[in-house]
Amino acid sequence: MASVLPDFDAVLAAAARIAPHAHVTPVLRSHTLDALAGCELHFKAEQLQRAGAFKFRGACNAVWSLSDEDAARGVVTHSSGNHGAALALAARTRGIACHVVVPEGAVAAKLAAIQAYGATLHHCAPTIAAREAACAQVQRDTGAELVHPYTDARVIAGQGTAALELLSIATLDALVVPVGGGGLASGTAITTSAISPSTRVFLAEPAGAAETAASLERGERVTEFVPDTICDGLRGTLGAPNFTLLRQHRAEALVVDDSATVAAMRLIWQRTKQLVEPSSAVALAAVLAHRERFAGLRVGVVLSGGNVDLDALPDLFARSHA
Amino acid sequence: MASVLPDFDAVLAAAARIAPHAHVTPVLRSHTLDALAGCELHFKAEQLQRAGAFKFRGACNAVWSLSDEDAARGVVTHSSGNHGAALALAARTRGIACHVVVPEGAVAAKLAAIQAYGATLHHCAPTIAAREAACAQVQRDTGAELVHPYTDARVIAGQGTAALELLSIATLDALVVPVGGGGLASGTAITTSAISPSTRVFLAEPAGAAETAASLERGERVTEFVPDTICDGLRGTLGAPNFTLLRQHRAEALVVDDSATVAAMRLIWQRTKQLVEPSSAVALAAVLAHRERFAGLRVGVVLSGGNVDLDALPDLFARSHA
Repeated sequence: MASVLPDFDAVLAAAARIAPHAHVTPVLRSHTLDALAGCELHFKAEQLQRAGAFKFRGACNAVWSLSDEDAARGVVTHSSGNHGAALALAARTRGIACHVVVPEGAVAAKLAAIQAYGATLHHCAPTIAAREAACAQVQRDTGAELVHPYTDARVIAGQGTAALELLSIATLDALVVPVGGGGLASGTAITTSAISPSTRVFLAEPAGAAETAASLERGERVTEFVPDTICDGLRGTLGAPNFTLLRQHRAEALVVDDSATVAAMRLIWQRTKQLVEPSSAVALAAVLAHRERFAGLRVGVVLSGGNVDLDALPDLFARSHA
Repeated sequence: MASVLPDFDAVLAAAARIAPHAHVTPVLRSHTLDALAGCELHFKAEQLQRAGAFKFRGACNAVWSLSDEDAARGVVTHSSGNHGAALALAARTRGIACHVVVPEGAVAAKLAAIQAYGATLHHCAPTIAAREAACAQVQRDTGAELVHPYTDARVIAGQGTAALELLSIATLDALVVPVGGGGLASGTAITTSAISPSTRVFLAEPAGAAETAASLERGERVTEFVPDTICDGLRGTLGAPNFTLLRQHRAEALVVDDSATVAAMRLIWQRTKQLVEPSSAVALAAVLAHRERFAGLRVGVVLSGGNVDLDALPDLFARSHA
């Protein structure tokens, strides 16, 4: 695993590396949402990225960073969510094996998506220890390269390409991204500091997993918490390199209740006709909840993905009325 | 009301007339859906049209066809759905009054959308007689021009511009559109016959409102039926001019169950991240239900709109498992 903190050169290299495989996603506007928010919103539409989320950028950069020799042994990760599917698809673009360790009880539809991209699933008990043991076992058995969902430097650099595309076509006063483990957040911070230092980076975080806000406030990484949020992509614990990068680049966290996130998700669906997942909508929710901070500004919002569990929708919508 | 049947020149004139106001919507592709359907699908994304549906094309053409003198008296229609909102927005682009007659019991969210575009609502009892009386009263009181949702020649010509855009960038063996009152269907038939006569036009129709299929089979217009379908945009009765045009151009109807439509809608949501309404998804459902007819072909599918009633989703999804 690459362990040095990535810099903007790494983001530029990632952009060149993934260009043949990843989509340059569009930037969407909505007059109605601008009026509602009282600012000028520029939505980076990563739900239209391959495999339905920004995660493909980092996974693709990691896969195509490998030497031919290393690549031949395949890649492995532990993620039953968007990173697992993204790595599976990225591995397929290079024609190499992908192993995904998934906990018992993971959503069947998500596992089917990972398998549909050609990855091999390895089931384990739903604990961190079991997950790490299963990953280590796959590495020993196959020699596969571990690609961590958000602490891997190649992954962080790849996620930084979304902001690179957005800032190359829009001048922004602020850029708001969701934060979970911090891969997208730290990649965005690197890119923004390098090419648009006057743009403030904000991290939208669900109240039920707000350890990034706590970590930045205390000046040390908080890792003890039990996530309780509908934003299934944002339940991970902020990674150590991610924390370091976010502090360095002075990103600011904004904490949002799930009910506000569901309301923002409905607005995005109704107004842009784009199916984004709750973990994306949290960024617009943060803008709407802190309207005075963004009044009149040009605000970028990364819609991080569109992999919604449709069978869970009735429950989700019930939350917005809570 | 314009009563002569529109021809392709009328479609071309409409295209020029609406160009300053309407979006040229994108055409979307999906490898996964192609593989599922066994053909090459080209989705015309009218959910991204202004006011969220193709209806803006016809409404805009009608509004901008009026003389300044007639326009000054405004427009009126009866529609609590997409046409009402589309006409309201079209009237606003010309800065004229719009009156919309709506039946008691109409969905509050839809009425709010019509009002948000600046139209005046006129409530009436939920019968055809009450609706027509209320329209006539508004016409007497204001001199407003009636713009019928689908029999108006200016509306039909406007709807024909969607196929014009699609066929100008894609060579198609077949073109599948939803059919309700027949505005989009007959406009599509006019355009297709004129510029791509070898392209077959198919009309996707819900089984619970399949009077177009019955009308085309009998060779006379069937108007006696009680619609029972989740496709709220397709409950209207096929119009007389629409029937004449569809027969002339030998369009063929394909009837689809609501459960297949909901399943197709979920597929479109999951695979393209586009929020389309059931009345749109019926077209993909028709292709999937008649796979052998479309095998290996280049197939255009008009996604007609994205105005989904989110509060009704749990009920909708329950249908797909029926």
